[in-house]
Amino acid sequence: MTDPAWLDDREQRAWRGFLAVNAAVRGRIARQLQQETGLSSADYAVLVSLSEAPGGRLRVFQLRVAADWEKTRLTHQITRMTSRGLVAREPCADDPRGAFVVLTEAGWEAITAAAPRHVGHVRHWFFDALRPEQVEALLDINDTVLGHLREADRTMGVPCSPCDVPPCDDVLP
Amino acid sequence: MTDPAWLDDREQRAWRGFLAVNAAVRGRIARQLQQETGLSSADYAVLVSLSEAPGGRLRVFQLRVAADWEKTRLTHQITRMTSRGLVAREPCADDPRGAFVVLTEAGWEAITAAAPRHVGHVRHWFFDALRPEQVEALLDINDTVLGHLREADRTMGVPCSPCDVPPCDDVLP
Repeated sequence: MTDPAWLDDREQRAWRGFLAVNAAVRGRIARQLQQETGLSSADYAVLVSLSEAPGGRLRVFQLRVAADWEKTRLTHQITRMTSRGLVAREPCADDPRGAFVVLTEAGWEAITAAAPRHVGHVRHWFFDALRPEQVEALLDINDTVLGHLREADRTMGVPCSPCDVPPCDDVLP
Repeated sequence: MTDPAWLDDREQRAWRGFLAVNAAVRGRIARQLQQETGLSSADYAVLVSLSEAPGGRLRVFQLRVAADWEKTRLTHQITRMTSRGLVAREPCADDPRGAFVVLTEAGWEAITAAAPRHVGHVRHWFFDALRPEQVEALLDINDTVLGHLREADRTMGVPCSPCDVPPCDDVLP
């Protein structure tokens, strides 16, 4: 492989800082939420994803947990949450091999109790630091990069339908 | 708990977009790197972390993989990389219970071969989308949030020494 255009110092700092902010903010929120509610960040992501779906129900592959999770790891996550009563599995009429994951009463209670705490942590660790114009700049950066990815997916013919693959915008709530 | 100040629409979009960009860009880079080199994103993070340490050697807790990894998961990761010959364990003279992780010759070769590809993917998926003023804005946002976290840690008396805890700036290279 020929040498790529290496990142210059500004780009190197911007990339590492971008990863560092994400890891540090999410790490702090995850640790606090775990201590206060017993929910891991993966538990929380699954509960949010289900709570926003019609009927609190999604196919396993539609759950938005993290972009880099293998299918096996997601299956284990759902099994653990099922045994804790936070979610339940239901058969899928259209697909004998498939299954729905559904939010239980206990799951609704857990996400309802955890959400205000989570929001408080997001505000404390992230938005309390930022001036309004920085929030605007972040919105602009997000839209630009996500548009760039969508355009690349479109050019490469990557399907975006939730019936085929996980959504192209891998949102981790 | 009293209701927190909920995120307004702009903040909600900024936060979800921030997570989505991180997950989508890292997910794409990870999939390509895995296909091209056989290295997972965790393998790559460990190799980069070691390659930048004096003598290619770090204590396990100094490895910067991801902020939300449990100790057990990190131990398994190192065990797998040891069995593949990418790293080796060495006893720690000062701490009989501790161990160093050291980059092997094969580990150096792997990171040397993978780094140009990784940089190419970072440029393709991220920097090719951004205008110079957006990179400047990102640097400003990163510095602001990381400064805010450092200040909070200082106020709360969280130790920052790598001898005590993982570095406060959880960098995921």
